[in-house]
Amino acid sequence: MYDDQTLLTFAQKAGAALAERGLMLASAESCTGGWIGQAVTSVAGSSAWYDRGFITYSNHAKQQMLGVQAATLTQYGAVSEQTAQEMAMGAIKMSEAQIAVAVTGIAGPGGGSKEKPVGTVCFAWACRHGLAHSKTHFFAGDRAAIRRQAVATALSGILQLLSDIPPSVV
Amino acid sequence: MYDDQTLLTFAQKAGAALAERGLMLASAESCTGGWIGQAVTSVAGSSAWYDRGFITYSNHAKQQMLGVQAATLTQYGAVSEQTAQEMAMGAIKMSEAQIAVAVTGIAGPGGGSKEKPVGTVCFAWACRHGLAHSKTHFFAGDRAAIRRQAVATALSGILQLLSDIPPSVV
Repeated sequence: MYDDQTLLTFAQKAGAALAERGLMLASAESCTGGWIGQAVTSVAGSSAWYDRGFITYSNHAKQQMLGVQAATLTQYGAVSEQTAQEMAMGAIKMSEAQIAVAVTGIAGPGGGSKEKPVGTVCFAWACRHGLAHSKTHFFAGDRAAIRRQAVATALSGILQLLSDIPPSVV
Repeated sequence: MYDDQTLLTFAQKAGAALAERGLMLASAESCTGGWIGQAVTSVAGSSAWYDRGFITYSNHAKQQMLGVQAATLTQYGAVSEQTAQEMAMGAIKMSEAQIAVAVTGIAGPGGGSKEKPVGTVCFAWACRHGLAHSKTHFFAGDRAAIRRQAVATALSGILQLLSDIPPSVV
C-alpha cells in the first residue's frame, strides 16, 4: 500500500519533471475528490508547476466545469475511459496547464455493479496536443485504499507520460 | 493536532448536517489544494451532499474559475478575507451548491511577510443568500500542520454555519 510519504515522493518526482520542462499541471478528479490536488500541493513550491484542479464530483460538475458531453455520460457512464478522456481534455482546455490527469471511479462501498465493481477506476492523461493515454484499473481494498491507489496511479502516470514523450510534443 | 480520523469525523458531521437539510456543498481551495474535498469525499455517500470543488491554486484560476476580481487580488492580495469572500461567493455562483467554504493562505515555508507571516489563512463561508462569515487565522507549525489546521477549521465552520442560521435563511 502507498502511505502518505510515498504519495508525497511521487508528487515531488512529478513536480520536478514538470518544472524541468517548464510545464504546468491541472487535475480533474471525481472519486479521488481532491486527493491528487492535496498530494501535489503538499510539495512546497508546487505553485511553480500546479495551476488548478477540478473536483467534479457530480455529473453536472463534469459537464459544466470540464465540458464532458451528456451523451458520453449516458452511453458509457461516469466511470469510463471515455469520460476520463473528456475530463482530461477539458482540464487542458479550461486551464493554463499543458499536462492534465483525470480520474473517475467507484470507491465504494456502494455504487458497484457486475460490469463495474467497486474498485473500478478509469484514468486519462492529456497534453496540449491531445489525449496521451487512458486505462482502467481494478483496485482491491476499502474506500480509502482504492482512492489511495488511484492517487498513486495518477501521479506515477504523469511521470511516465513525461518520460515517454519528447519535450517537443508536449 | 487534528489527525486523519478527526478530519473524517468533522467531515461526517458536516455531511450529516447538510444531508439533514437537503443542502449541497462546494469547496474553493487555494492553500489546502484539495484537502477539504479529499476529506469530505472520504465519507461514503458524500455525493448526496457534495457537489464539486474548485482548486484555485493560481491567481488566474481564482479569477477564471470563481470570478475573483483582479482589483481584489491587487488591492488586498490573494491571501485576504476579501479574496476568500469572493471565492466563496463564486463557488456558490459557479455550482449547484447552497453552501460554500473558501480557504486561501500561506502554508510556507516560503511566501510569508511581516504583515502576512507563514501560517496566515483566510476563510469565508457563504450560502445562497450571500456571504455568511469570514475570518483569519494564524496557525503554527510546518506546511502540513498549517494545511491540516486549515482543513479542520473549514469543516468545523460549515457545522457552525448550519447551527447558527435558521433553515429558512439557507
